[in-house]
Amino acid sequence: MSETGKDVSDWWSTDIIDMAPGEIRMRGYPIDDLIGHVSFAQMIWLMTRGDLPTNDQATLLEAALVAAVDHGPQAPSIAAARMAVTCGVNLNGAMASAVNMLDDVHGGAGEQAVELYTWIDTAILEGAAPDDAVAKMVDRWQAERTAFIPGFGHRFHTPEDPRAPRLLALVDEAARAGTVNGRYAEIARGIQNTLNARKGKPVPMNIDGATAVIFSELGFAGPLARGLFCLSRSVGILSHAWEQMNQGGRNKGPTPPAYKWTYTGPNPIGQKERALKEAEPKD
Amino acid sequence: MSETGKDVSDWWSTDIIDMAPGEIRMRGYPIDDLIGHVSFAQMIWLMTRGDLPTNDQATLLEAALVAAVDHGPQAPSIAAARMAVTCGVNLNGAMASAVNMLDDVHGGAGEQAVELYTWIDTAILEGAAPDDAVAKMVDRWQAERTAFIPGFGHRFHTPEDPRAPRLLALVDEAARAGTVNGRYAEIARGIQNTLNARKGKPVPMNIDGATAVIFSELGFAGPLARGLFCLSRSVGILSHAWEQMNQGGRNKGPTPPAYKWTYTGPNPIGQKERALKEAEPKD
Amino acid sequence: MSETGKDVSDWWSTDIIDMAPGEIRMRGYPIDDLIGHVSFAQMIWLMTRGDLPTNDQATLLEAALVAAVDHGPQAPSIAAARMAVTCGVNLNGAMASAVNMLDDVHGGAGEQAVELYTWIDTAILEGAAPDDAVAKMVDRWQAERTAFIPGFGHRFHTPEDPRAPRLLALVDEAARAGTVNGRYAEIARGIQNTLNARKGKPVPMNIDGATAVIFSELGFAGPLARGLFCLSRSVGILSHAWEQMNQGGRNKGPTPPAYKWTYTGPNPIGQKERALKEAEPKD
Amino acid sequence: MSETGKDVSDWWSTDIIDMAPGEIRMRGYPIDDLIGHVSFAQMIWLMTRGDLPTNDQATLLEAALVAAVDHGPQAPSIAAARMAVTCGVNLNGAMASAVNMLDDVHGGAGEQAVELYTWIDTAILEGAAPDDAVAKMVDRWQAERTAFIPGFGHRFHTPEDPRAPRLLALVDEAARAGTVNGRYAEIARGIQNTLNARKGKPVPMNIDGATAVIFSELGFAGPLARGLFCLSRSVGILSHAWEQMNQGGRNKGPTPPAYKWTYTGPNPIGQKERALKEAEPKD
Repeated sequence: MSETGKDVSDWWSTDIIDMAPGEIRMRGYPIDDLIGHVSFAQMIWLMTRGDLPTNDQATLLEAALVAAVDHGPQAPSIAAARMAVTCGVNLNGAMASAVNMLDDVHGGAGEQAVELYTWIDTAILEGAAPDDAVAKMVDRWQAERTAFIPGFGHRFHTPEDPRAPRLLALVDEAARAGTVNGRYAEIARGIQNTLNARKGKPVPMNIDGATAVIFSELGFAGPLARGLFCLSRSVGILSHAWEQMNQGGRNKGPTPPAYKWTYTGPNPIGQKERALKEAEPKD
Repeated sequence: MSETGKDVSDWWSTDIIDMAPGEIRMRGYPIDDLIGHVSFAQMIWLMTRGDLPTNDQATLLEAALVAAVDHGPQAPSIAAARMAVTCGVNLNGAMASAVNMLDDVHGGAGEQAVELYTWIDTAILEGAAPDDAVAKMVDRWQAERTAFIPGFGHRFHTPEDPRAPRLLALVDEAARAGTVNGRYAEIARGIQNTLNARKGKPVPMNIDGATAVIFSELGFAGPLARGLFCLSRSVGILSHAWEQMNQGGRNKGPTPPAYKWTYTGPNPIGQKERALKEAEPKD
Repeated sequence: MSETGKDVSDWWSTDIIDMAPGEIRMRGYPIDDLIGHVSFAQMIWLMTRGDLPTNDQATLLEAALVAAVDHGPQAPSIAAARMAVTCGVNLNGAMASAVNMLDDVHGGAGEQAVELYTWIDTAILEGAAPDDAVAKMVDRWQAERTAFIPGFGHRFHTPEDPRAPRLLALVDEAARAGTVNGRYAEIARGIQNTLNARKGKPVPMNIDGATAVIFSELGFAGPLARGLFCLSRSVGILSHAWEQMNQGGRNKGPTPPAYKWTYTGPNPIGQKERALKEAEPKD
Repeated sequence: MSETGKDVSDWWSTDIIDMAPGEIRMRGYPIDDLIGHVSFAQMIWLMTRGDLPTNDQATLLEAALVAAVDHGPQAPSIAAARMAVTCGVNLNGAMASAVNMLDDVHGGAGEQAVELYTWIDTAILEGAAPDDAVAKMVDRWQAERTAFIPGFGHRFHTPEDPRAPRLLALVDEAARAGTVNGRYAEIARGIQNTLNARKGKPVPMNIDGATAVIFSELGFAGPLARGLFCLSRSVGILSHAWEQMNQGGRNKGPTPPAYKWTYTGPNPIGQKERALKEAEPKD
């Protein structure tokens, strides 16, 4: 315990924001310089990275943020937001309930794809032939992690997820302009070719695979791929929560009430009930 | 229960997004047309409102989104995000924990300010003199709701919150350009003058008051002011969560461990313990 | 800023728990006296109220806690917990996602019922005839709050919610034993009679109405009725989350995938797409 | 898509609860048989395990649930609950915010301890000498997972966490009575001896280590150790949230406001500001 209180101030320390009465600086920039001069996408970059992007970098980031905002109310996150609103939850709580669902399986594929791309990139930098690096690291992923190759395959969008080729085309354009170097786009296409060949049918690159290319090209760390996806999907979440608020409804469950769930346990209703005396009850 | 399943499909219905294999439309626009052509701020508008804004409208919205991203780790939301990360929570969960805190008191002032502005606007449209409308509705707010006038006053930023005059200047500019009509800026300034006069000292318009002017000028409903604030502050939340992840730490509590909380209840340690037999224990 | 750090320690002050190295006291009782000597229900009472209940009080509280643990996967909270697990969320996060849904509409009816009972009780204490007090306060509730009388009516359980008569019978028994005085049971039955008469059909007292009787009889404040319900329902939430974890599944949405939601907005797929140039796009 | 809707009902299937109008069965037992006849701890067991425990099993579970309810407001979960309340969050949302924090680091140690105990138990069953099994598996944990041995060590409670010896004494008693066989208590003591010897000082068994002994002895799966801890700690969370609600406060941050955080980034306030023109701004 110090006499100065510096230990208390140091308990929370940050490179992000400084304040004095009447003054706010973000990453060293006065807030009033930033307002009106940088776009929301540039601000996201500044806050998460520490420096402002070039306009071309920001444009590419913006494409990824626009692409991932929504995938409809069958996504557990969107459904959760809508259900929450009908339970009386405010918009912030509905957004929280939904973003909480964007965990490893639902929102983590982008982060995982960045990791897989990095494995392959590292192997290539160490001298492996690109095709070999892809094949080997896909094998490694399936051996060490899971059969699902993050960023590839889609239950619904076959043979192609419409967002992926559009995003990749923007990366190609940015590579031609020298904004990025394009090697993660190549890696992702290499994975797709490998998977297509192995499965004998098109395995579409999905939104996570395509945005992970952009995030990797722009130098974002893997966990930020998840974080940026959460920011993007929060837009769809808010929109659906707000629409549900206008539609009304109370305690809206997942399925129409007439379709009761299926009970698969012992002593279903209609048959003999389970008797407490068979157990050793409290009294 | 229908034979067609239409009742199940209708259980979740939306104006926001349509899909078919290989196709996604948001508010009727193909997603591949939107990607690369609209900014993230335009996309936020489209998703929440149903139509695309003009560039000038989007620019004003963008200023509000940029202005509110962060206010430092003493804000409960930011602190919660950082604490969550040290508990092992992923970035999505840390963001959820923090956004959940942006409730009526922490994130709801913008929504409330939109409502107060609307009361005043309605009174003026019904013929009241602006100053009278302001005075009367401020009184009504304090009588019906709470002593706190939403959007005004700041514990820290005195005499002025640096974000407010900058945002208001952008609204004035947009009003001169005909993008908005400027009447909510006038209302907010009227409130400030009234509060200054009543308190006998400057009562700064804060970030909620200033962004509520923008949201009102642009026609956003009150609850969306809260939702848009959540989107904006999510940027700061993500940035702080990510910084904390890089700083490390485990189960980081609010204050340095050496400063134990103060116990104010019966039988403190060091004094006689409370005896179970004085109660009627279970056995 | 003080030189002693007492201001920091005082920032978090509590009557609930005191600690020193090797010592923990809850409400003044050493933790090692409580462990093995009080039931979980008694501990819940001690922590929320400050004193230990009698065994008879604890038994009645226990009945309410047992009664409300679950109502099946069509409840938004339970569905959210199960969906969360399939998104990769840990059990704590799944529980959080679900408890977050127990807001005013889904989990707040008990709190509201306590409030309504208190209105009626106060009117009776002030001299009103019980029937008049009920009729008047039901009217007031519908005028000031909402058409829904909290704690009464059930979409599914007609003519009777099986939990309510069982819980009320326990209250009657406790009243005969002098544990409680039974006046909230009378009030709740008065509401039911009034609603039956007004509707011309049985309006079942539901789980919220019945547990609110118990909580009121035992002297719990209204908000704790919500909190205790959350504790109770957390048991069902955990059970369903755990069952889902064992069932497996990935990103399980609300309805079977084959039933796509219904799109009700402009330019559905299959019809002409909406053209960006009709708007004023970014570039 | 089926014509019967059975696919929709099957989408959510469960062994836990069956319902018909006026009837609810949990694990086959009518709810009205359970209410008033089983304790809350027995109900928790029934819901998570599928069968009722004996009274002696329930008593041991109850001790673990009582022991872990709270550890004071410096725990991130408790602090989050209190902060949430001052942001306007309802009790259910405050509980959700706090339980969300009980992730791998804050609430996962019990689950991990069950896993470590199981490794050791398996090694012993396969013929290893107990001491060797402990030493080898502690090494394996530190090699494969983390340097922290889950369930052992405490920042504050030295040389002993008061909850652990009390809980272990109850396990010993239950082992003598034949309720459990006591082998996990032996394993945990073996770990403690090993760690004491390696560190050359007492390494206290903590609450997670001690409750994990009970959960293992009673046959609970590892993830349920986390889930049961969440149920238990929810009691403290609720109590602190409720106390904070009564204390009042608005947007209460982690530390007293006078102790501003420490800014460690570029261009602090008081020094030259960072110039936007050094970057490539939007306009």
